[in-house]
Amino acid sequence: MTGRDAARFTGSASGHGTSQSTDDEIWEWWEALPREDAFEVAPIPFDRMRGWGFDDKGNLVHDSGRFFSIEGLRIDTDDGVITQPIIDQPEVGILGFLMKDIGGTPHFLMQAKFEPGNLNVRQLSPTVQATRSNYIGVHNGRATPYVEHFRSAPRERVLVDVLQSEQGEWFWRKRNRNMVVEVEGDVEEREGFRWLTLAQINRLMATDDVINMDARTVLACLPLAPAEEPGPGEPDDAFVRALRRSYHVKDDDPAAANTLAGIVGLLTDVKVACTRDRRLVPLTEVEGWSVTDEEIVDDARREFRVMAVDVRAEGREVGRWTQPLLEPHDVHTAVFLTKDIGGVLHVLLATRAEPGLADMVEFGPTVRLRSPEEDPGLPEGFAEALALDDPERVRRDVVLSEEGGRFRAARTRYRVIDAGGILPDRAPEGHCWATVGQLTELVRHGGYLTIEARTLLACLHGLW
Amino acid sequence: MTGRDAARFTGSASGHGTSQSTDDEIWEWWEALPREDAFEVAPIPFDRMRGWGFDDKGNLVHDSGRFFSIEGLRIDTDDGVITQPIIDQPEVGILGFLMKDIGGTPHFLMQAKFEPGNLNVRQLSPTVQATRSNYIGVHNGRATPYVEHFRSAPRERVLVDVLQSEQGEWFWRKRNRNMVVEVEGDVEEREGFRWLTLAQINRLMATDDVINMDARTVLACLPLAPAEEPGPGEPDDAFVRALRRSYHVKDDDPAAANTLAGIVGLLTDVKVACTRDRRLVPLTEVEGWSVTDEEIVDDARREFRVMAVDVRAEGREVGRWTQPLLEPHDVHTAVFLTKDIGGVLHVLLATRAEPGLADMVEFGPTVRLRSPEEDPGLPEGFAEALALDDPERVRRDVVLSEEGGRFRAARTRYRVIDAGGILPDRAPEGHCWATVGQLTELVRHGGYLTIEARTLLACLHGLW
Repeated sequence: MTGRDAARFTGSASGHGTSQSTDDEIWEWWEALPREDAFEVAPIPFDRMRGWGFDDKGNLVHDSGRFFSIEGLRIDTDDGVITQPIIDQPEVGILGFLMKDIGGTPHFLMQAKFEPGNLNVRQLSPTVQATRSNYIGVHNGRATPYVEHFRSAPRERVLVDVLQSEQGEWFWRKRNRNMVVEVEGDVEEREGFRWLTLAQINRLMATDDVINMDARTVLACLPLAPAEEPGPGEPDDAFVRALRRSYHVKDDDPAAANTLAGIVGLLTDVKVACTRDRRLVPLTEVEGWSVTDEEIVDDARREFRVMAVDVRAEGREVGRWTQPLLEPHDVHTAVFLTKDIGGVLHVLLATRAEPGLADMVEFGPTVRLRSPEEDPGLPEGFAEALALDDPERVRRDVVLSEEGGRFRAARTRYRVIDAGGILPDRAPEGHCWATVGQLTELVRHGGYLTIEARTLLACLHGLW
Repeated sequence: MTGRDAARFTGSASGHGTSQSTDDEIWEWWEALPREDAFEVAPIPFDRMRGWGFDDKGNLVHDSGRFFSIEGLRIDTDDGVITQPIIDQPEVGILGFLMKDIGGTPHFLMQAKFEPGNLNVRQLSPTVQATRSNYIGVHNGRATPYVEHFRSAPRERVLVDVLQSEQGEWFWRKRNRNMVVEVEGDVEEREGFRWLTLAQINRLMATDDVINMDARTVLACLPLAPAEEPGPGEPDDAFVRALRRSYHVKDDDPAAANTLAGIVGLLTDVKVACTRDRRLVPLTEVEGWSVTDEEIVDDARREFRVMAVDVRAEGREVGRWTQPLLEPHDVHTAVFLTKDIGGVLHVLLATRAEPGLADMVEFGPTVRLRSPEEDPGLPEGFAEALALDDPERVRRDVVLSEEGGRFRAARTRYRVIDAGGILPDRAPEGHCWATVGQLTELVRHGGYLTIEARTLLACLHGLW
């Protein structure tokens, strides 16, 4: 199978295909993995970190100058200056899935990966999830398994290879290389790795905190296109049919509420209006935040804190280390509101400015909150849609974790809500309706969908 | 006509349609425009500029802090540090065409615009070509005609609205907003403006220095798709047929030598390898360049110089001003080598790193030279292809000017050469074959094609 045949595997996202293992076998494997006894993460004061410290600008940095650092960010807006701490990690890493045809069904090689910020020790990650420092061995640790498949992949076996953004409120211009590479022939299933079908991954995605952020962003980039008609035993109702149809409504198709040019144009418009000066500054210049022995924290306790941990982990490249982690104060909320427009499911996108995004603005979830109580002054109808609890309307409601290598217990409640009949066809200012087909076109390129919008797109892939 | 009906006007790129004026009438109008008597541009020493001067970092800046400045750029590479002067112009301007259906044929409103760097006084530009300072009136000049159509265009009338790069060797992260907006009803043809069909524009593009850079980049972004069969009286040979067919081979079509994912992936690969630190530094820190009373110039005289001019222009927002201009030392060359692969014309793209591009790397022409004598060590077969002079092979050979508002007599010789039989199907390293359909998909987004590749794409639009 080459990249061109990718459509082949798209019938199997919810279907049954022939999988190498049953769901029960996967759960057994998952439950039996070593956890608390193999890994230990203890909060420590900053001065007990090894190799890390505050430099003369007050930035929290590694002695080698590598990995990442906690610095200040200054944004000059029309209404004044905003400052905040931010993670600066200039190097681009690989988030890569190996894909393999096993018994006629594509399988993806997932790793049950430990990360120090995971609230449940392990989560399922892509085959390779490695910063450049990792895989070229700056850690002086072990080689990253399978990375050779991504570093020398023949172009025709590459299904996805695109730079995508990460959290623009927490990272300064961070991007990772999202890759899916098809392999043929024998590829060893090493300890802690498992070949899963897309249907299995989608079912696991409905469980809290199992599929990690890095897996979700790459899965969102897959060029999927389900059959318009549900197969036997597959979900079938008006929502599912409108969703399936939506994958096939792309580009400037008259069945879409907006042209692709119009969608791109809205983003252009908001970008041009957002000509703000942004730059890294010393952490000492950040106002409204305090640095104590144990944390860097916003005085209002609405954003996040940076703290330090001591980590002992047997299965990692290096067995023991210390590092900072960023911990949000509350569970975030990210919602796609959808609507059937003329038999085609549309998603309401919101333009979203985040100071760390390379181009400042991307499309994000329809609604995003930093705490369940936050009241950002939502457009008309949104509150009513968010209050829906009928399962016919609330198609997905799951709490998933953000990257455990940098964030501590950072959880987001992801919801897909069918808000037809409540929201008007005309999108509020700064928002626009897009089909799923248009989203899959946009996500082939970087700079369009935020990491949270990509998780929600991956959720949509699991709803048919 | 809405954006969705754009394909309607695509049959007319070389055809005859009903145009408002004949070609002869247009030439008459063009020749009769006031030129040397209405405009005067005189080189002056830097210290005779009004409102401009060198600041304490040695940068050449405007007193208002607006418009643009000449600063230093420092690039840290694996082989050492490179520095050069560069134009910093943070604000995003509009390059916009109004399009209107006249007698069933789409017409584009062009302006015969004076720019101080134009070697022939006037060139044909888009309807609006204005920096933000221009159109919000920082110049204290007249309002920019027609700009209101672009600032409040209904989304469904917007055919193109995308941020595109400009010369990454001369500009620091410069991008402009490329727009095409359709209008209905009466729009006055003001003095110096003229409605032209795409076929007429394409014919004018074959003449040296008539269609300006800003018009070319916007025209390249049009979502064109010609009929696969040539109409009566239209050019017809194997090249034209392969070219027409190529517009319809998009995305991951098996008739394309590469998938779109593979093409995007090559760019990703080169970007990741190019993780160089780049930043603006004081002009005084630039090495290998000299600042005299009259110019900022590279000692080797291979790149460019920055000089100053005194301008008197009756038809502009402001009647008289002084400003710096960047003048390259020689005529550049930019070439698309093409090849028929399985009946589909393919263009050989080269990945191109330019320090001022927002993401450092985009796809550029197959070959680009800073002077006719430059020998950059071309891949096998390229020299033989460049030496072709048979008109069956050399489909376009024209010298066109780069932006006359910032550059002085900056000319590039653009060539489209059919190199079938000479170049192998397998692209050299850092290059890849793409169909014209794939190029039109990529150019819907920013960050893929350099300004020179976009001019060459606009040239392809004129070859059927």
